[in-house]
Amino acid sequence: MRKVCVVVTARPSYSRIKTALQAIAAHPELELQLVVAASALLDRYGNTVAYIEKDGFDIAARVYMVLEGENLVTSAKSTGLGLVELATVFDNLRPDVVVTIADRYETLATAVAASYMNIPVAHVQGGEITGSIDEKVRHAVTKLSNLHFVASAQAAERVIRMGEPSDTVFLTGCPSIDLTLDVAENPGLTFDPYAKYGGVGSRPDLGDGYLVVMQHPVTTEHGLARQHVEETLWAVRDLGLPTLWFWPNVDAGADETAGGIRAFRERERPLNLHFFKNMTSTDFLRLITNGRCLIGNSSVGIRESAYLGIPVVNIGSRQQGRERGGNVIDVGHDRAAIVAAVRRQLQNGRYPPNPIYGSGNAGQQMAHLLATVPLTIEKRLTY
Amino acid sequence: MRKVCVVVTARPSYSRIKTALQAIAAHPELELQLVVAASALLDRYGNTVAYIEKDGFDIAARVYMVLEGENLVTSAKSTGLGLVELATVFDNLRPDVVVTIADRYETLATAVAASYMNIPVAHVQGGEITGSIDEKVRHAVTKLSNLHFVASAQAAERVIRMGEPSDTVFLTGCPSIDLTLDVAENPGLTFDPYAKYGGVGSRPDLGDGYLVVMQHPVTTEHGLARQHVEETLWAVRDLGLPTLWFWPNVDAGADETAGGIRAFRERERPLNLHFFKNMTSTDFLRLITNGRCLIGNSSVGIRESAYLGIPVVNIGSRQQGRERGGNVIDVGHDRAAIVAAVRRQLQNGRYPPNPIYGSGNAGQQMAHLLATVPLTIEKRLTY
Amino acid sequence: MRKVCVVVTARPSYSRIKTALQAIAAHPELELQLVVAASALLDRYGNTVAYIEKDGFDIAARVYMVLEGENLVTSAKSTGLGLVELATVFDNLRPDVVVTIADRYETLATAVAASYMNIPVAHVQGGEITGSIDEKVRHAVTKLSNLHFVASAQAAERVIRMGEPSDTVFLTGCPSIDLTLDVAENPGLTFDPYAKYGGVGSRPDLGDGYLVVMQHPVTTEHGLARQHVEETLWAVRDLGLPTLWFWPNVDAGADETAGGIRAFRERERPLNLHFFKNMTSTDFLRLITNGRCLIGNSSVGIRESAYLGIPVVNIGSRQQGRERGGNVIDVGHDRAAIVAAVRRQLQNGRYPPNPIYGSGNAGQQMAHLLATVPLTIEKRLTY
Amino acid sequence: MRKVCVVVTARPSYSRIKTALQAIAAHPELELQLVVAASALLDRYGNTVAYIEKDGFDIAARVYMVLEGENLVTSAKSTGLGLVELATVFDNLRPDVVVTIADRYETLATAVAASYMNIPVAHVQGGEITGSIDEKVRHAVTKLSNLHFVASAQAAERVIRMGEPSDTVFLTGCPSIDLTLDVAENPGLTFDPYAKYGGVGSRPDLGDGYLVVMQHPVTTEHGLARQHVEETLWAVRDLGLPTLWFWPNVDAGADETAGGIRAFRERERPLNLHFFKNMTSTDFLRLITNGRCLIGNSSVGIRESAYLGIPVVNIGSRQQGRERGGNVIDVGHDRAAIVAAVRRQLQNGRYPPNPIYGSGNAGQQMAHLLATVPLTIEKRLTY
Repeated sequence: MRKVCVVVTARPSYSRIKTALQAIAAHPELELQLVVAASALLDRYGNTVAYIEKDGFDIAARVYMVLEGENLVTSAKSTGLGLVELATVFDNLRPDVVVTIADRYETLATAVAASYMNIPVAHVQGGEITGSIDEKVRHAVTKLSNLHFVASAQAAERVIRMGEPSDTVFLTGCPSIDLTLDVAENPGLTFDPYAKYGGVGSRPDLGDGYLVVMQHPVTTEHGLARQHVEETLWAVRDLGLPTLWFWPNVDAGADETAGGIRAFRERERPLNLHFFKNMTSTDFLRLITNGRCLIGNSSVGIRESAYLGIPVVNIGSRQQGRERGGNVIDVGHDRAAIVAAVRRQLQNGRYPPNPIYGSGNAGQQMAHLLATVPLTIEKRLTY
Repeated sequence: MRKVCVVVTARPSYSRIKTALQAIAAHPELELQLVVAASALLDRYGNTVAYIEKDGFDIAARVYMVLEGENLVTSAKSTGLGLVELATVFDNLRPDVVVTIADRYETLATAVAASYMNIPVAHVQGGEITGSIDEKVRHAVTKLSNLHFVASAQAAERVIRMGEPSDTVFLTGCPSIDLTLDVAENPGLTFDPYAKYGGVGSRPDLGDGYLVVMQHPVTTEHGLARQHVEETLWAVRDLGLPTLWFWPNVDAGADETAGGIRAFRERERPLNLHFFKNMTSTDFLRLITNGRCLIGNSSVGIRESAYLGIPVVNIGSRQQGRERGGNVIDVGHDRAAIVAAVRRQLQNGRYPPNPIYGSGNAGQQMAHLLATVPLTIEKRLTY
Repeated sequence: MRKVCVVVTARPSYSRIKTALQAIAAHPELELQLVVAASALLDRYGNTVAYIEKDGFDIAARVYMVLEGENLVTSAKSTGLGLVELATVFDNLRPDVVVTIADRYETLATAVAASYMNIPVAHVQGGEITGSIDEKVRHAVTKLSNLHFVASAQAAERVIRMGEPSDTVFLTGCPSIDLTLDVAENPGLTFDPYAKYGGVGSRPDLGDGYLVVMQHPVTTEHGLARQHVEETLWAVRDLGLPTLWFWPNVDAGADETAGGIRAFRERERPLNLHFFKNMTSTDFLRLITNGRCLIGNSSVGIRESAYLGIPVVNIGSRQQGRERGGNVIDVGHDRAAIVAAVRRQLQNGRYPPNPIYGSGNAGQQMAHLLATVPLTIEKRLTY
Repeated sequence: MRKVCVVVTARPSYSRIKTALQAIAAHPELELQLVVAASALLDRYGNTVAYIEKDGFDIAARVYMVLEGENLVTSAKSTGLGLVELATVFDNLRPDVVVTIADRYETLATAVAASYMNIPVAHVQGGEITGSIDEKVRHAVTKLSNLHFVASAQAAERVIRMGEPSDTVFLTGCPSIDLTLDVAENPGLTFDPYAKYGGVGSRPDLGDGYLVVMQHPVTTEHGLARQHVEETLWAVRDLGLPTLWFWPNVDAGADETAGGIRAFRERERPLNLHFFKNMTSTDFLRLITNGRCLIGNSSVGIRESAYLGIPVVNIGSRQQGRERGGNVIDVGHDRAAIVAAVRRQLQNGRYPPNPIYGSGNAGQQMAHLLATVPLTIEKRLTY
């Protein structure tokens, strides 16, 4: 019976790992120890912990660790604080393996704590390329990890080239794709977004199609987040179509992004925009599947949208370097370019499914691997 | 005028970076911001801060960050605490580049703090192979760093193979070699170790030659440190030659090592052993240059001893994977094997100098590079 | 030359200590070491640090220490983080005395850090009674402090009764009164609040008089903050007079308060309310001096308003137990009661000045005392 | 069913609270949540956690929180770190009341964390007078606490005079007295201290009587700890009687004390001294009950020894202000004075029992009170 500790720290990483959590919890030879921390505990980032409890998971520990300020200093300090406390959590839970997700600062805190405590680390989603601080963090986590559950063939190759033993690298696909299966099979919009999620702003009629926007600040472009979000705001106002806009994540720059949105709303009072704070990931997938185009820089545009064939306009550098399917048009932070790209996507309509990020069994594979592969902490460069 | 912040956290890393500090402080286009932290502030690890002040450096900030316990949990927590506080230090000092040394937990805390704060990181001594947690940490720091000052050609090659742009990798050699120049030119034992450094235990006559031992615990072999040090203690007792033994570093396991030494002394009261808590690095080099053999697992046996041609018996896994010259005989933690290897070295005597870790100008090169190379925080895998 | 370290952590405590800072900085035998920390560094609490710099003070260190969440757990953790970091700050600054203000968690962190470091602590505003967690903290800080600069005669008596030696208790008055001198002498509204401070919401005409509201959450009434703020919102909507409303402080519950205000605005779109995020303390005093009534639970209603003779409706328990002049009417969190009390104040108009909290030279007295009284860390109960 | 969280952080506080822990665990309406933290987890302070487990208690959480350095800065930082982590622990355990013991920095961290989290705090051993930082901390904890379990009538009176409501102050006596009952009834030395506890140094024959020494550093006399311990070392060497000496607690100055002892042993090789690192509290009581005199500054000399009638020579300021029975002779840090006082006590022999610190049912009383008194967090000064 192996104890598998998974640290969930944000809404998007919860979505991304959920099927793995279910598979671990259901596996007869695994015990799930779920730690909920960081922005996953905070109301203003969507109160993820409530969804986790609603999904029926037991929570082994909760750790508040996000410093206010959303700037570069506080990101570093939040990492440190998380590291201090996760060490205590691991010391009390004594897991056999720790799972850490993607490339956030909590991902790094988790990997460092487990590494120093001689607990094997399994990393989900290594080997990808994006630029910005995430790039540094993701590869640093790879070097701290003992098992690598990667999402694409290119990612697998990169992890191995970085010197990881190839028998520790597993091409599971991304568990976010697992969640699309249901929507792919029954694609209808089965709920009224306004009724179910509230939100603020106008409530344009969604009957004739709508756009969805999700745009996060980019940490290394600190100071530009406001200008960047404004270009997108102007573009969707100019397009004039019903648009559902999602609030940004906690990250250096999120205050700027939120400030830009608030000021724009006050000043322009756009009639075609509605704003949501959060949504379950399944509902979000269903929403974009029924929408005409996903706009912004969310990784959902690159991953889930590939498998679902959703037209995407990806803005700016945040997803730079990530493998993408033909469903994505890349543009800069430029109002006119965004408008033009969205129009091209509206004309094109849906794309065929593309399995570059997996075909829906990533969670199952991870649970099986966590139950069966040898767990070790010792490793060396392969060259 | 670039502000270069160097974080010194332990006696050995101070020795290793000292010539670089001097070169930075003397460089007309650089301002040195020296932060002294962790065990470098603690009496029981040799009160490094006193040597730093005696060497004439100004200290920009002091940060206590080592948790008591010397176990796996506290290593992780110390890293986190260091990260929290170094972020504040960097926020107040606002350096243009941060220099981090080798592969300790404070090295990682420094690199993470600077990375999140968008400060370029220069890493000294990446690309080496040793095994144990140091291995994970060293390569993770490489992935967080923007400039790589490596000690050997093999190390340079490995850093590049891990995906770092080759124009950011500089083969400076190890600054520890810089410190050997003086001893290499005037090799005499110019001081009486007992008179100058006190210490405890017998004071055997050093006139007819002596052995030097420095043995640290290995973090991934936690629980074995006591047994390991006992094998060496028995070996040097059996050899019966005058032996000068140095106290271990702060690290998970140091309490066990120290406990093993204390118990052995109480029980066996060995007449040929004297124990030192610490020594300036120059005096230590002079001491081993005039000794007949260096025993243990210190990196000095691998690096400085290569250039100085000192016979070395390297015990156990701590230096595994590090390039070494012909002056090193490797043995396991086995009393008989240690005795045999030391006897072979005594017979062989001194070796010719070997420049694999540089030839004495590493500090100068680093200062020059820090003053002149482009400083950037953005990077991507080269493949 | 004594080094006096003052830790400023929030907009209101900056206002409250500003004249003391000026007097310390100007004193020939004192050196001011100003540390800016906690919400004083955060944009969403009014960016106090910008005002501090504009006022010409040098900042010796900045420390981010507020955890996100604004709940009970994060208040405790912010205190702990502040304590960790302020210890490092004091270790680097080596002050002769540390000044801590009032009863916030940072006040306690400051007092604990200094106490353990054997640095004498001067406490401003001890001996008052308010209830809630502030009550516990304030008296705990008294027990950690060596000098007591109290604001009223009753406060002085209480500090002495708690066992503090009477020769360490000084009735300086509150430095917040110092700032009212200027307004008391030239009471005109010399600026246009909308033009100078922006803010959001309607911009009712202020020509015929206006109300001012400042209402903070009460930590021990956690869970009720939203309901409490709603009663006040309904009351001022019912009154129908032009009203200027100020955003709450960082504290457990602030998110609830802010959420209540946001929802009310969305739903009711009140035409007589304008919302400000912050204002310089001088401008705020000028604003309320020219207003018809100050409503809420701010300490300004109790202190500065006493000296300025401003009609005040004080709501709820936050100021309970604080000495007050005849200018204050106390009411519960009840819409009708608030309306009635405001109407009584409107009828009454301005009150005569009352010096219970000092007469305007508190800052000067504190500087003089810090320069001349014996500094000691040892103390015992007087009974 | 009330959940009672007790935070145990050191060997002496465990001894002092043990009977209360047993009574809480046995009480049908209480659930014990035992948190073990700080030096109670550390080998070099006697590995208290092992005794706790051996005594059959379940441990709800472990928290490492002691920074290395044993100086003023690290005491402050350990307090802060403890506060951060205890908040997380309380957030996960959700106790109805938290019990904090005496006047250590962890006591304060515990009280602050619980206070901010609106958890009622019960304080054991408030109202005593000792001087030094403990004095500040003890009374600050009183001001943060809602229930006061005091050890003596004078202490009860002082807590009430400090403004605590008299119906929250309970004269339970000190639970340390509870542990003496067994020894008081069967006073024989039922074990061989050398055989059971090892230790280092000579093993003088105990058959004709022996002295026991326990001397801790005093935090406000930092820098003098070494000189102070040396006076006692010389005194017991001069007395020439078999002497059993106990190692100091973790505290600022402990390194100095330990260093003084080590150097003295190396230099003087005293034949009548044996050194123990730790002992169960029951065995320690049995040991001093069978000894001829207890020397040093341990609180055991003041409390337990009063009830047991043991002759005590109390050295220096550490117990200053604490009520004491006729069994105590107070002396300064002076070799000759210590010798003279011990000789007087040897002549006098045992004293009659004195119940000033209770008569052995403190633990039972505390459990009963915790189960039955109203729990509240709100309080105000009574004047």
